[in-house]
Amino acid sequence: MTPRIDALQYANWSEKIFRQMRAGGVDAVHVTITYHETFRETVLNIEGWNRWFERFPDLIFQGFTAEDIDLARQTGRTAIFFGSQNPSCIEDDIGLVEVLHRLGLRFMQLTYNNQSLLASGCYESEDTGLTRMGREVVAEMNRVGLVVDMSHSGERSTLDAIAQSTRPIAITHANPASWHPALRNKSERVLAALAESGGMLGFSAYPHHLRGGGDCTLVEFCEMVARTADLMGVEHIGIGTDLCQDQPDSVVDWMRTGRWTKARDYGEGSADNPGFPPMPEWFHDNRDFGRIEAGLREVGLSPTEVAAIMGGNWARFFADSFGPAQPLRREAAQ
Amino acid sequence: MTPRIDALQYANWSEKIFRQMRAGGVDAVHVTITYHETFRETVLNIEGWNRWFERFPDLIFQGFTAEDIDLARQTGRTAIFFGSQNPSCIEDDIGLVEVLHRLGLRFMQLTYNNQSLLASGCYESEDTGLTRMGREVVAEMNRVGLVVDMSHSGERSTLDAIAQSTRPIAITHANPASWHPALRNKSERVLAALAESGGMLGFSAYPHHLRGGGDCTLVEFCEMVARTADLMGVEHIGIGTDLCQDQPDSVVDWMRTGRWTKARDYGEGSADNPGFPPMPEWFHDNRDFGRIEAGLREVGLSPTEVAAIMGGNWARFFADSFGPAQPLRREAAQ
Repeated sequence: MTPRIDALQYANWSEKIFRQMRAGGVDAVHVTITYHETFRETVLNIEGWNRWFERFPDLIFQGFTAEDIDLARQTGRTAIFFGSQNPSCIEDDIGLVEVLHRLGLRFMQLTYNNQSLLASGCYESEDTGLTRMGREVVAEMNRVGLVVDMSHSGERSTLDAIAQSTRPIAITHANPASWHPALRNKSERVLAALAESGGMLGFSAYPHHLRGGGDCTLVEFCEMVARTADLMGVEHIGIGTDLCQDQPDSVVDWMRTGRWTKARDYGEGSADNPGFPPMPEWFHDNRDFGRIEAGLREVGLSPTEVAAIMGGNWARFFADSFGPAQPLRREAAQ
Repeated sequence: MTPRIDALQYANWSEKIFRQMRAGGVDAVHVTITYHETFRETVLNIEGWNRWFERFPDLIFQGFTAEDIDLARQTGRTAIFFGSQNPSCIEDDIGLVEVLHRLGLRFMQLTYNNQSLLASGCYESEDTGLTRMGREVVAEMNRVGLVVDMSHSGERSTLDAIAQSTRPIAITHANPASWHPALRNKSERVLAALAESGGMLGFSAYPHHLRGGGDCTLVEFCEMVARTADLMGVEHIGIGTDLCQDQPDSVVDWMRTGRWTKARDYGEGSADNPGFPPMPEWFHDNRDFGRIEAGLREVGLSPTEVAAIMGGNWARFFADSFGPAQPLRREAAQ
């Protein structure tokens, strides 16, 4: 049996949610542990996770390698893999890439909407591609096995990252812009380059990424997945729900503005829709993964294809991505 | 063949020293990576070590478990295990114990000469034993597998730590005070309690800890080791040279004063002997471990006893000490 994996969640974590992960048969989740936080603040967030792991060892544990997906299945738990949605956690210090990888960071976005030290975000009017430091950090991420995630990056920066990275990258939570033209969704050019390089796209269930928002039906969502399988190849797609369960609206304000502005920024929202949007009726929490799986079968995907999309592809990607690039390591030592 | 292990060095690291480790057949070294540094500064030191590991992968690598001693022997390298000589690196945050253990910290002194947040140092006039936070941190160190090291602590604090710790502790670098009554050397009461609890003493070759200072002969040193074997049991002793090779005297000033005083503090030195003291002629660098080994045989210790002292005992202690205390972990989760 193939595992069930969600490549992006940022919930207001609780025992209830961990129990829902088990009820939904979710074997591994890539969770966002930090956005705009400094390194020290990120470590405080890791300390918070360590408390969860200590309190609920029968439900969750920290995942470091793809083998932990198997361990999760064997022991009836969910493996939690850490990720960052912005490079604030490495500050201006490339040495923190290896340190955070040692602490379990497995994905890092080069940008979150705005320009970062590394690349341009999808909300900037100018996208200058990878910066000087961006190219160095991508090489270091490649070396240690920290996945480049371009979910919130601009088009040129994303194409740059795909080209520069010596290992496949990920867009953990976004949908095709051809289906729903949101700034956060990705062009066919990006998706084709991503697939060609061996990368992965995780489909988002976040309403701002859905055609029709929260009114998008499960069939519409699953038909979009099936079409993208035709475009990218079924082996390059998975799930990355962007589930922000039980978060107060103050959190989406923090996600959008961090400390970069004193004004309000609505991000994907708007003045008349400033908070977290209501989720589609077919996906409220981790117990609903079975509904997506059933929906994918109903739009004509084969059991093998559905298993690959629901977790098999991410499991393969995790196995290929989280360890050191041994040959490169030796070259770097010359 | 048993391994050769040094339980304390703080050298001015260089390729030369790493090559001397290999020439001396040293399989594992506990290196001090931090004294008075904050958490962030300690991480910068780890980043510096990561650069060494990347530059000299054929000579050294970071050790995390006792199996890495075997790996070192099999691959002709030296496993480097991290330690701290003061708890400054955890600041006032018990959560940093687990974080630093994840980054590879395997020993932490509760004090460095002065009072800390955790205990009293051996240079304080009053020793109040473990503090409230000290008792909590010892329990957390026990839980994750970070060894309590009391080399620079006061008598009462050391006895407290031995009694409070649920796992054996270490005094990585000190000698018996009955042989040389330095403040840093340990009373027979401490040594007996240490041995009874399953702990380990590492014999120091640092001149201030030697009878006669740098003029101490190898025979005198080895006879002291043999007498301590009679006192503690040969299974509780090893080597912890306190080698501070190639360090400028500015470093011993930093070790002694950190940021706690604007005045000068001579620590174990004095106004007319302020710097690093000259080493004894029989121990200048890692290539001299064979001389100690030969010296121990010459004072009548058996080959089995010598092998235990030169590394076998530390290897057993590493194996017992560096992993999580599984049963306690579950109890803590209640």
